[in-house]
Amino acid sequence: MKATLYTVSTLAALLLSASFLSAQVKEDFKPSTANQPGREYPMVNSEGRVRARVEAPDAKRVQLDIGGVKYDLVNDGKGVWTGESAPQDEGFHYYQINIDGASVPDPGSLYFYGAGRWGSGIEIPAADEDFYALRNVPQGQMRELYYYSEVNSQMRHCFVYTPAEYDTNTDKRYPVLYLQHGGGENEYGWPEQGKTAHIIDNLIADGKAEPFIIVMDNGTWTRPAGSERRAGGGLPSNWADNFMNTLLNDIIPMVDSRFRTIADSEHRAMAGLSMGGMQTKAITLAHPEVFSSVGIFSGGSITPDEARSSKGFVEGNRLVFISYGSRELENRRPGSSDPSEDVEALKKAGINAHFYVSPQTAHEWQSWRRSLYQFAQLLWK
Amino acid sequence: MKATLYTVSTLAALLLSASFLSAQVKEDFKPSTANQPGREYPMVNSEGRVRARVEAPDAKRVQLDIGGVKYDLVNDGKGVWTGESAPQDEGFHYYQINIDGASVPDPGSLYFYGAGRWGSGIEIPAADEDFYALRNVPQGQMRELYYYSEVNSQMRHCFVYTPAEYDTNTDKRYPVLYLQHGGGENEYGWPEQGKTAHIIDNLIADGKAEPFIIVMDNGTWTRPAGSERRAGGGLPSNWADNFMNTLLNDIIPMVDSRFRTIADSEHRAMAGLSMGGMQTKAITLAHPEVFSSVGIFSGGSITPDEARSSKGFVEGNRLVFISYGSRELENRRPGSSDPSEDVEALKKAGINAHFYVSPQTAHEWQSWRRSLYQFAQLLWK
Repeated sequence: MKATLYTVSTLAALLLSASFLSAQVKEDFKPSTANQPGREYPMVNSEGRVRARVEAPDAKRVQLDIGGVKYDLVNDGKGVWTGESAPQDEGFHYYQINIDGASVPDPGSLYFYGAGRWGSGIEIPAADEDFYALRNVPQGQMRELYYYSEVNSQMRHCFVYTPAEYDTNTDKRYPVLYLQHGGGENEYGWPEQGKTAHIIDNLIADGKAEPFIIVMDNGTWTRPAGSERRAGGGLPSNWADNFMNTLLNDIIPMVDSRFRTIADSEHRAMAGLSMGGMQTKAITLAHPEVFSSVGIFSGGSITPDEARSSKGFVEGNRLVFISYGSRELENRRPGSSDPSEDVEALKKAGINAHFYVSPQTAHEWQSWRRSLYQFAQLLWK
Repeated sequence: MKATLYTVSTLAALLLSASFLSAQVKEDFKPSTANQPGREYPMVNSEGRVRARVEAPDAKRVQLDIGGVKYDLVNDGKGVWTGESAPQDEGFHYYQINIDGASVPDPGSLYFYGAGRWGSGIEIPAADEDFYALRNVPQGQMRELYYYSEVNSQMRHCFVYTPAEYDTNTDKRYPVLYLQHGGGENEYGWPEQGKTAHIIDNLIADGKAEPFIIVMDNGTWTRPAGSERRAGGGLPSNWADNFMNTLLNDIIPMVDSRFRTIADSEHRAMAGLSMGGMQTKAITLAHPEVFSSVGIFSGGSITPDEARSSKGFVEGNRLVFISYGSRELENRRPGSSDPSEDVEALKKAGINAHFYVSPQTAHEWQSWRRSLYQFAQLLWK
């Protein structure tokens, strides 16, 4: 009897699922805003499904690979393959196309650097997308520049955002945020998929943030030869050193010499996502004389003990901001510490600490766009 | 007897060709400098051959598509496909990979906008590549900015290069070059495959060019509804108007208000490649009160009659620069006019006219990098 019931409910689930997949796909697809100019596909519907279309006349199998799932596309008999994914979360996602076993970028999308490669990205419309939209407000500049790094004995590449008023208020000096990408990403992450300039331009135009400079550099670290790995195969114990040395000895002096910065710790912040958040934690705890504001997006938190163990950190700190996507918190390991409890404890220890949870997003860019939006409103206050 | 001779020479040619293709490929391949970080393939050898490698375990046919020719790659039996092209000219080329009939970007390369799509590009090392190399010299900035266009009732996007000294010599004002891409390309062409910042930074560092500002906008025109096409199906008679109106009414005023320009015709130049060169010709002849220096790269020339038909052009002009890749001149239609003769005639008419031919290059970016390098040394003198 139990077996029969199980079978019936399984059948019902299968029927529901089949009808969900075939009949109930909403036919309100529009081209993704991350498409190449003039390209109709990929498309997205109001459920957040992605519809991909690829011409591959002689292929045997074509798949859309997004969110860790591969969806078979269907050949129309003329070599044009089309199909949809399950609904995706709001915001930006990396994806790729598989053609007879080859993983390649979708010829229809723009390309972004993440997961260790330049490849396809797609935008799922979000209810709050206006905060990162291009609006007709005073526009800052995203400046690409190169500089010589003594630490690495080579030329390096970074982006510097300057607010709209920077080129007209030529006597004014500005605070600076050093803003880092995640693992497998690079310095293009915040300017491109991060929508940094639009987010900050909009906040400044709306009077919600002070104008400030943002530096986005490449924090990818190469493990120095012979460096130890932690027990359990984790990051080597000196993993943050390489980028920290470059930041302190090359990047900050270069920025302070080429831009009108307020070159003191009170007006210098660091933030980052995932690996960049872990670097932010390590570097700001090691150097409270350099940074006074700290943002860690999906990259851990700081405990009162850690804050107190860094001489001068508590006294000099102006802001600690910790954030996560809600799905990251829902799916965290049983028994792991609750980062919101760390933030409450920091507040009790006298730190201006804030905790933010991005609704219904995972370890992805929509969490980090929202985190930057929240963090920027708390900076320099 | 004639038939026999023909057969013998054909056989000889085939044998030569076969040995050339198989035995004589030089095994000194190195990763292309336009590869994604850490990617070994595609590679290039000292003959200028491209070796592509793609993983496509279940594919039936994989090809490298470069220079208008498709080269079959060979499966190693494990699904890794490898093969070489014939030698390519020095410099940058667009290319793509074909997998069972699907034309896709090569997952190993960086991506560039040309031929109407973001896709793969490759660099063939050039004897003169130092002029566009990243060197440890004072570095300018490539600034990305947005502005509202009244002409188009929308936000637009452009790049502005400022020389290294721009942010320190804050009392100095600078001349401006408006520099346009070709058909099927966009405003990313000159900053990325054009290597504009490196070329100008190096020239300024070597004392070969005056510091100046460069504006790179999107000159792609949409044919207005109902506009006439010329006899023979050519460009519509008003094809240059849309970009001209945007340039004169939106772009130039925006640049003159946001940057420290010398806002007169004497210190304003326009240049472009291919379609951008044709736009440069049309716009500078129509508005000699706006521009005094003119560069046309692979986009035609100006005759003395055309110059004289524009009131004030001859009197106000400081420079006319015409250039081509040598292969473009070699392959031009029999009976078509010789652009070097136009330049000689302009000189006789009192114009400071210059003609440049890029050695052993075609209608491609190496011709235009070299043209910019030559043109920049003649500007503002």
